[in-house]
Amino acid sequence: MDLFFNPRSLAVVGVSASDFNLGRRIAQNLQEFNFDGIIYYVGPKGGQTLGRRIYKAVADIPDQVDLAVILVPARFVPEVLEECGQKGIHRAIIESAGFSELGPEGQAVENQLVEVAAKHDIRFIGPNCIGVINLHNGLSVPFAGLKDIFARGKISIISQSGGVGLDYLNVLGSENLGMAKFASIGNKLNVDECDLLEYMIADDQTDIICMYLESIADGRRLMEIARRTSKPILMHKSNVGEMAKEIAQSHTAALSGDDMAVSAALGQVGIARFDESDTLVNFLKILPLPRMGGNQIAVISRSGGHAVIAADACEKSGFSLTTFPKPFLREIEKHFRAKVIRLTNPLDLGDLFDYDVYTRIVEETVKLPDVDSVVFLHTYISAVEREDSRAFLKKLEEFSYSHTKPLATCVSTDGEEMSKLRKTLTHPVFTAPEDAVKALALLRDYRHDQIPQPELPPGQMDKARIAEIIARCRAEERPVLLNEGLEIIAAAGISVPGFEVVATADQAVAAADGFGGPVVLKLISAAVSHKTDIGGVLLGLDGRQAIERGFVSLSQAAGQAAQVKVLVQPMVEGGTEMILGAKRDATFGPVVLAGVGGIFVEVLKDVAMRVVPFSQDEVDKMLRTLKAYPLLTGARGRLPRDISAVRNGVLAVARLIDAFDEIQELDVNPLMVLHEGQGAVAVDARVILVRK
Amino acid sequence: MDLFFNPRSLAVVGVSASDFNLGRRIAQNLQEFNFDGIIYYVGPKGGQTLGRRIYKAVADIPDQVDLAVILVPARFVPEVLEECGQKGIHRAIIESAGFSELGPEGQAVENQLVEVAAKHDIRFIGPNCIGVINLHNGLSVPFAGLKDIFARGKISIISQSGGVGLDYLNVLGSENLGMAKFASIGNKLNVDECDLLEYMIADDQTDIICMYLESIADGRRLMEIARRTSKPILMHKSNVGEMAKEIAQSHTAALSGDDMAVSAALGQVGIARFDESDTLVNFLKILPLPRMGGNQIAVISRSGGHAVIAADACEKSGFSLTTFPKPFLREIEKHFRAKVIRLTNPLDLGDLFDYDVYTRIVEETVKLPDVDSVVFLHTYISAVEREDSRAFLKKLEEFSYSHTKPLATCVSTDGEEMSKLRKTLTHPVFTAPEDAVKALALLRDYRHDQIPQPELPPGQMDKARIAEIIARCRAEERPVLLNEGLEIIAAAGISVPGFEVVATADQAVAAADGFGGPVVLKLISAAVSHKTDIGGVLLGLDGRQAIERGFVSLSQAAGQAAQVKVLVQPMVEGGTEMILGAKRDATFGPVVLAGVGGIFVEVLKDVAMRVVPFSQDEVDKMLRTLKAYPLLTGARGRLPRDISAVRNGVLAVARLIDAFDEIQELDVNPLMVLHEGQGAVAVDARVILVRK
Repeated sequence: MDLFFNPRSLAVVGVSASDFNLGRRIAQNLQEFNFDGIIYYVGPKGGQTLGRRIYKAVADIPDQVDLAVILVPARFVPEVLEECGQKGIHRAIIESAGFSELGPEGQAVENQLVEVAAKHDIRFIGPNCIGVINLHNGLSVPFAGLKDIFARGKISIISQSGGVGLDYLNVLGSENLGMAKFASIGNKLNVDECDLLEYMIADDQTDIICMYLESIADGRRLMEIARRTSKPILMHKSNVGEMAKEIAQSHTAALSGDDMAVSAALGQVGIARFDESDTLVNFLKILPLPRMGGNQIAVISRSGGHAVIAADACEKSGFSLTTFPKPFLREIEKHFRAKVIRLTNPLDLGDLFDYDVYTRIVEETVKLPDVDSVVFLHTYISAVEREDSRAFLKKLEEFSYSHTKPLATCVSTDGEEMSKLRKTLTHPVFTAPEDAVKALALLRDYRHDQIPQPELPPGQMDKARIAEIIARCRAEERPVLLNEGLEIIAAAGISVPGFEVVATADQAVAAADGFGGPVVLKLISAAVSHKTDIGGVLLGLDGRQAIERGFVSLSQAAGQAAQVKVLVQPMVEGGTEMILGAKRDATFGPVVLAGVGGIFVEVLKDVAMRVVPFSQDEVDKMLRTLKAYPLLTGARGRLPRDISAVRNGVLAVARLIDAFDEIQELDVNPLMVLHEGQGAVAVDARVILVRK
Repeated sequence: MDLFFNPRSLAVVGVSASDFNLGRRIAQNLQEFNFDGIIYYVGPKGGQTLGRRIYKAVADIPDQVDLAVILVPARFVPEVLEECGQKGIHRAIIESAGFSELGPEGQAVENQLVEVAAKHDIRFIGPNCIGVINLHNGLSVPFAGLKDIFARGKISIISQSGGVGLDYLNVLGSENLGMAKFASIGNKLNVDECDLLEYMIADDQTDIICMYLESIADGRRLMEIARRTSKPILMHKSNVGEMAKEIAQSHTAALSGDDMAVSAALGQVGIARFDESDTLVNFLKILPLPRMGGNQIAVISRSGGHAVIAADACEKSGFSLTTFPKPFLREIEKHFRAKVIRLTNPLDLGDLFDYDVYTRIVEETVKLPDVDSVVFLHTYISAVEREDSRAFLKKLEEFSYSHTKPLATCVSTDGEEMSKLRKTLTHPVFTAPEDAVKALALLRDYRHDQIPQPELPPGQMDKARIAEIIARCRAEERPVLLNEGLEIIAAAGISVPGFEVVATADQAVAAADGFGGPVVLKLISAAVSHKTDIGGVLLGLDGRQAIERGFVSLSQAAGQAAQVKVLVQPMVEGGTEMILGAKRDATFGPVVLAGVGGIFVEVLKDVAMRVVPFSQDEVDKMLRTLKAYPLLTGARGRLPRDISAVRNGVLAVARLIDAFDEIQELDVNPLMVLHEGQGAVAVDARVILVRK
């Protein structure tokens, strides 16, 4: 992978002498960035440009070439790649657009590319991308002029979209955030985000990795790679809804998976996910600062109003405001001539206009042991205070490091001065108190250490029984029936109340007598998946007459089928209804979900998800994210429910889908969760096998 | 009020020749803004500065003065105001800080100010503020240099905080949003936000009013004034949480009321509320554009990635993406040489680099009848495309007006070019597609017309009965008892199941016999407010034995009281439990709230509130904001509940608190809402009277 970023020589294919030629812009870029290697230009018309000869064909280049950068019309790309292969070039960046993102024709050309690459053992980035940048050797092959935009640093970027990638380059430049490497991956036909992530993780010049993705090629691999590092990975993932899908497909041939699975997966491996660039950049700004040792903030403000706004923001983000110790306040008090200040946190500097005193106050504050971070809110009119203010902000920058606590500065001044400050300070400058506080909260909550690969805790499972049921369904080429579904989850370790399968009304009555009390009758049918829709479930039937009548009505609902089968169950009441589920996500493989039944799942979409495998602790974390969680813990005088039974249910479902590749999807709905110590029972289950 | 903004002559009191003198900065400001009136300086040391004499006392000024701007240490302010009064000056702006925001001492000085002002009939703004600006006559009295920051326009600002006010001035300037007038109101001891709002509404030079407030002086008056105008009012209201309160009190002596009441009140009178300045400014940017005629958006993007992001944002905000008609697409197609585009909405311009074609495409798009707004997403490197791009953006600006549809442009380029664009374009420039789409959604949803004063629809209420109960409680100096609470809400028109008050176990059994079926026993006690906490409620008692035992246990819970009173009610089951409430808010007076009982109110804080009075339609709107609303409408196959009974309940509660000033607070909890057509019954109620 390193040849993509550190080639000793490269050929730009598609260069002409015309001002409008995009290949020539790449050439210009390389020149302006002082690329530390040998450059060749190739273009069918030949000639010369920028002081260099343009070879008519790749074959004409006299020397060995490490990397080809190709920007010719799509239909010519396979031919050029073939030439590269013959020349012995094994790395290519294909910037040309017009492939699968346009439909079948482009798809055919892509297939050719894959073929040629395989033949010659070529790895390539793209097509439909703007290439790579390495600020450490001046490699810069986007077809857009980028000179002087950004500073060299430790942040590397992987972007599926060239345009959004440029956007991040612009922002990095404006915010004085130093960059190491950049890669736009486009249609990711050969090299994908995982290849590049792996490379950036190993790269010494990269400390922080930002990714913009619209699709994830291989979710499992991404997770596995991310787990291997403690370098922060920040991901902006779009293509979330239905409307984006069409354009996303046209744009990158990207299928969008289940967005909830994306969030779950990234969370489990410590990748910080962002839905928009602003928040990502705010986090990026604060991330290089020392970590927060605790949850206590001191706010110092030149304006009472901003102090109020910051206090609201601190409360919203769950921070505490340090109570300043008396001796500290007495010390502070000395600096004020008139008594135009009330000594509290936030500390409003009132009408104190003395930058030296500001500096001393901030330093005294940052020294306090109970202060984990200082937020300074600074409003000024640049025409008057520009110089003082710049020097002061430089000082604050130093304090962050000399006292190893993150200082967040929020500045309000005119636009021109703001952009100058951002360009010159390496310390983050926020414009709104809320942004500064939110960024600190992200810093506080971010898990900086490596996350080990978890294992599902072992549990009882009758694998042979499950395998037998699945084999039978496969052999008979039919779906898993209701009773079989219940048997499977019972074999996986979830409590299921006893049930019987009957074929006549008399058998149903006999079964009910066996259970005692009211029963439920459910139609068993290979054809009917949504039993309730056709009246296939009858609840709370008590006594011979009711059961007989129920059996007849189910028979009628089943239609003309010769042999009706009905499941008889005792009626279970009084639990909190939960839904447990599992499915095989297209991107991340087996995932498990849990939610509280009724309005919470159906209307509020209050569902938690995790990618399998996960630890028992993770199940607890997962359940705690549910809005309806207090229903389980027994909020406000209710009796607590048996959460350990829910935990076991989630683990059982996870083990089940993990152990049986044949299972596409399964639901336990509802799981009736009883009072603490009394367990939980599943009264209905649905298991769907993978289509053969 | 106009003399504050258009004085013919003014005196700045507190000027010295020193460079560090803040009064001198005010003088400088007036000079730089070319104030169109006569200026006098006053300062105890006399002398001269900026080419003008400094009078030693206000009395020394030879001519008549309309307005005094005072910036002397707090303790001298009453004296200066007295001098002003003697001189016949009736308007003052007091910028000095150090008053009630610092505690009791400052409070005393404030009291003096109020006294002096009353004596001489002086109206004053402040203290603890940065004064006013009128860009139309050059009046600019903040003690911060502000020259050249902003352009003249139609936006006026009222800010409780000087610092946050400066912040808005900075942003207005950076975004090229033209300003008319500005007022910082500080401790609002005499002139408050309502006075200024009233003035701005009447002011011909103001089209849009922005307010930053930490407290609201008189909520009812604010609502009444806001109702009188169709000028948009945008309010940034902070001081929401507990942490902000302390600093807010020190800052402006502001008591924070119930924040939910604030949101309700502002919504009812059409004031757009914002919790942060960014969103407010984004709305401010798009507000002057033509209104959206419908919900259909066309997105045109130079980058596929941004198109994906915009599509996600459109879906989130509930927009539709117009399906482009065939002839239009054929027309568009002609402009593309190579076929590097897929014709869909969002329209990704792919590798088309031709600003003339962009312009034509945008114009053709904006002309489409099914397009209500166009979002153009523009990414470029300014070094290369600066000139073309600027001209193109100017064109887009014109299209908004020539086709009377709002066009939102989102630009990604380097920081310097961005700040130049913002300074020169009058059309909004957003940096993130999400921001552009969110701003359009605000524009779509904003109600531009005047909102008439609503009236509570009339309803049955037995006022005499209610008055009698209240009078009895007042006479006996005790709270309203449980049975009386039920009687009051019954008299207000809410269904209450029959109940009896008994004093012996035998009476209880007899009452239960009368009702038939299981009953509820509740302890009636003036001392016990939370019945359930002490076991004062017994549910579902059936049969003599259970009732007798229940009565005994309630007697014991009541303690040694000689005479136990117990309420006997039939047990009501099977409804959806709601909570209706009303209270007298410190800022807005009577408000009503409603929510679904249990976890929704208690844990999810899922409550809707409205300020009384309101129309029947408003009740429906209110109920629809509840997350639990689908529980009432019968989501997912449930039977719908009797929403009209809920509506009547809300109106009854509103009429009750509206009609009886003696009521401080009341709860109907729970209101059991039965199936559609079957009404709703209140099984418990609590009425708390205003403390005498």
